[in-house]
This record gives sequence, C-alpha cells and structure tokens, in this order.
Amino acid sequence: MFGGSVCDAETSKKAMEVGRLLAQEDVIVYCGGRTGVMEAVCRGVAEAGGTAVGVLPDDHCDNANGHVSIPVATGSGQARNVMIANSVHGAIAIDGEYGTLSEIAHTLGQGKPVVGLGSWEIKGMQDAETPKEAVAKILGLI
Amino acid sequence: MFGGSVCDAETSKKAMEVGRLLAQEDVIVYCGGRTGVMEAVCRGVAEAGGTAVGVLPDDHCDNANGHVSIPVATGSGQARNVMIANSVHGAIAIDGEYGTLSEIAHTLGQGKPVVGLGSWEIKGMQDAETPKEAVAKILGLI
Amino acid sequence: MFGGSVCDAETSKKAMEVGRLLAQEDVIVYCGGRTGVMEAVCRGVAEAGGTAVGVLPDDHCDNANGHVSIPVATGSGQARNVMIANSVHGAIAIDGEYGTLSEIAHTLGQGKPVVGLGSWEIKGMQDAETPKEAVAKILGLI
Amino acid sequence: MFGGSVCDAETSKKAMEVGRLLAQEDVIVYCGGRTGVMEAVCRGVAEAGGTAVGVLPDDHCDNANGHVSIPVATGSGQARNVMIANSVHGAIAIDGEYGTLSEIAHTLGQGKPVVGLGSWEIKGMQDAETPKEAVAKILGLI
Repeated sequence: MFGGSVCDAETSKKAMEVGRLLAQEDVIVYCGGRTGVMEAVCRGVAEAGGTAVGVLPDDHCDNANGHVSIPVATGSGQARNVMIANSVHGAIAIDGEYGTLSEIAHTLGQGKPVVGLGSWEIKGMQDAETPKEAVAKILGLI
Repeated sequence: MFGGSVCDAETSKKAMEVGRLLAQEDVIVYCGGRTGVMEAVCRGVAEAGGTAVGVLPDDHCDNANGHVSIPVATGSGQARNVMIANSVHGAIAIDGEYGTLSEIAHTLGQGKPVVGLGSWEIKGMQDAETPKEAVAKILGLI
Repeated sequence: MFGGSVCDAETSKKAMEVGRLLAQEDVIVYCGGRTGVMEAVCRGVAEAGGTAVGVLPDDHCDNANGHVSIPVATGSGQARNVMIANSVHGAIAIDGEYGTLSEIAHTLGQGKPVVGLGSWEIKGMQDAETPKEAVAKILGLI
Repeated sequence: MFGGSVCDAETSKKAMEVGRLLAQEDVIVYCGGRTGVMEAVCRGVAEAGGTAVGVLPDDHCDNANGHVSIPVATGSGQARNVMIANSVHGAIAIDGEYGTLSEIAHTLGQGKPVVGLGSWEIKGMQDAETPKEAVAKILGLI
C-alpha cells in the first residue's frame, strides 16, 4: 500500500476501505507507517483485525501512526520506500506525490504489479475505480 | 534478539528457549530472520504462538527462515542490524561473531539495554547464565 | 546524473558529452557507478579530468565501472538511488527505465530540479534536446 | 578512518596527523564526515591536498564538516557506518564510543584489517601507539 502523507477525507475513506478489504483476505499489509493515506490504510487493517507493518523512515518507532501493529524503524528516510517494494508481492497506490511515484517505480522495477487508485499513471500500472476493484485486481495479479 | 548465523545445538536450544519465553510475555521479537541463532529464536517464538519479525539483509523475502511471521526485506545487507537496533526497546545477544558485535554496539549506542547470553563482553552490557535469566533481566531493564 | 544500466550507442554518446561538459564546469558528478549511461557519464567526466562519484548498490567496490574516481559501496541496492538524490543539487536524467524514474521521483520530491534528456516525462521536470542544453539548464536551475 | 564525534585536543591532533599521512600516501580517506575525530582527519587530509570522502548519516550535505571534499548524504543514520566499512580496504579507529565499535565490527566482519589508536580492544584488531605506526601498519595490511 502506497500513498501520500497528506490526503483529503474522500481519499482517506478509500484507503481505509482498501485496508479493511486486504485484511479480510488475510493479507499482511506493508506501508510507510506514517500519516495520511498510510494511517487510513492501517486503520482499516486494524478494524478488520489484520496486521499492518509500518516501515518507517525514522530511526525510532515514536512516529508510527496508532494503527501500526508492527513498526520497523529503518532510519533510512525515503529509502524505506525501496524496502516496502522489496517486501511485498504487489502494491496498490492511492493518491500521492513524488514519494508515491518513487514507490511505484521501485515496485514496477522489480517486476511486481501495481494497481493505482486515483494515483499516478505510469506505463505498466493498472488502474482501478474503487477500493474493491483495486483489491480484486491486485490479488488477481500476484 | 541478536545472534550468529551459525550455531551449535546447545546454543540453538538456548535461543529457542529465549524465543519461547519472550513470546509468552507477549513481546514482539525482532531478529535478522536468517539461519542459526535467528532461526532458533523464531522457532521458539512460533511454537509459543508469538510474532517474529525478520529484518532481512536481502532485497527479497525468499531467504527468511520458515518461522518468521513478518519478513521485511531491507536490501541493506549488514545495515539491517542498525534497523533492528532502531526498532527494539532492548536486546538479548546470544553467541555470535562480528555481526552480533555490531548489533550490540548499535543498540548500546542508542542507550538501550543489551543482555548477553554466552556472547561478547562489552562495557554497558549485562550478562545472563540462562535463557530465563536473560529474559527476566531484559524485561526488567526496558 | 541518472540513467539506465543498459543503453544504445547514441544515448551513450550523449551521456559522455554530458559528463564532459559537467566536469568542464568543475561540477562533482554523482551517479550509480555501474554500466550503461552511468559508465558513459563517468567516462566523459574522466576524459575532462573531473571527479565522478559512483554510489554503488553493492556492498563492495568491485562492480564500479572503470571511470569512477570515488566509489561508495552502499550495500543498499536500489536504495542507493535515494542517496544520490540526497547528495546532489540537481539532476540530469538520460534515457532509463524504472530505476531512473525512481531517481527522478526522489530528486523532485526533495524540491531539486531535474532535466530530462530523452527520459521520462514527469510533471516538474524540464526537457532538453541536447547535452549542451541539458547542462546549461541544470546549471541555471541549481 | 573511524572515530568519535567528540574528542579532546590530543586525540584531535593525532587524527589530523593520521589524515595527513594517509593523504601523503595518495590514499582516498573515507570517514563519517561530521565532527570530532572525523573533522580532524578530514582537516589533515585537506592540508596535505588529499581527498576526504564524508559518508554522512544525514539526508543532505549541510552537516558535512568544512574539510570534506566529497560528501555523500546517505540519509541512513548509523547505517552509514556499514557503508564506510563496505567502501574501504582497511580502517584505522581512533578513540570513539559505540559508533566506532560498530564500525570496527562491520569492518572486521568483512575480513578487512582494523588498526586501533587509543580505541577499543577487540579480537582481530591490531594496536598502534602513534599515528605514524597506525598508518604504516594499515598500509602493510591492505
């Protein structure tokens, strides 16, 4: 799960829904563990009783959002985006700015599928209109 | 939990016991996720129904030992030792070579407690004779 | 300087020219230190008597191309792209695949200018038609 | 070159002397690029007209000491210690606390020689009494 550290209410709602759906499928969800889309996803995962791994840029766990179940403090700043890409089978990108673009690039560069939900449009990505479609697509691709 | 990638049967048994005891205390156990002491600890954690986070040096999850519940593929080689130190409240070091020494140094350097069980003797560390004592000591210190 | 690890002869020629021009302006050139565009740039830098820093993905210096003057073995795989972005004032992207896209994203994400020469077209980047124009543009922007 | 970020005048003088001697032997000197022993070494290198690579923990170059000729902003915090160990043929450790100990461990763990000058005493290291002896020893070992 990739997405920006700041997002509007509608995007947040979508991200929570994605988190909930993934957790219901017993998927371990990896994200950046901070605010915005990341927090909304983790909240959705937590509400469905799932596991949300927060791969943090910080060298300590204090900045993890309150819904992260497993924090990992990489201390590597934006390089933690690469570590998320390394750890997953595929990714859903929601909204997001350049950080999200870098995560899309790293994931596609490893030959893993990326589904976008109102995010960047990069060759090799697939698009989805709804959280349900995004989750169905990524589970079909991995 | 820190320790070497190769270890003898007795060390392995101690490491399993440490993993089991930590999991019984509902501690999330972070380790390097590979072989030797790391594998034994993860096995102990798994047998007690706990969560073992494997912070891997590799840029993929294929080399995680079979008892890791949450793999994180840092792709950072030995730098992953720093990320373990960043993520924990304290550490138990079992046996180990220079990799373990680096983990001890990173953890102590962050002002976090390290208990040694047949490991290096470095100023600032505490020693334990048995897995039970090591777990009791580290839980008392964090 | 960002660019793919494989490139055709024309791209290689452009990359060498960019390296030469940057070195003539006494710019320290940072790149990934490996093959393709990176090697061509380093060769151009070396021919002009400049300094080419190779920020390598490997945990040793053996894979640096022969024109790197300062190798740094990050052992961080693709995360080394972030470290290049961190270290520079601006970047020229030549050709390239997803690795180059990630570097563009990391650099723009830090608010630093990126000039593309036959590379990705991402909002916030500027385009150039020739090596000379690319070098002039990036030096004007930083 | 490894050493603490804070040091007394005598240690600083020794570190400068080591930097100067290494540069006179046309060795590229890698260090952490910050204050204390690192700054003194870089100053010695600069005074002898050599090249001092500063492998910084920060994700920007602003905190490099003024004598670093090539800054690399890893953004990886203490994990940059591993990157220094990866990049060198051998190391001299001067004074230092746990950060220095981690660097010693990473370097020895890679099978590379480490000479200590008033630093930690770890099996596998060699000791030197003076800057001159330290430089002679490390050049003999690599």
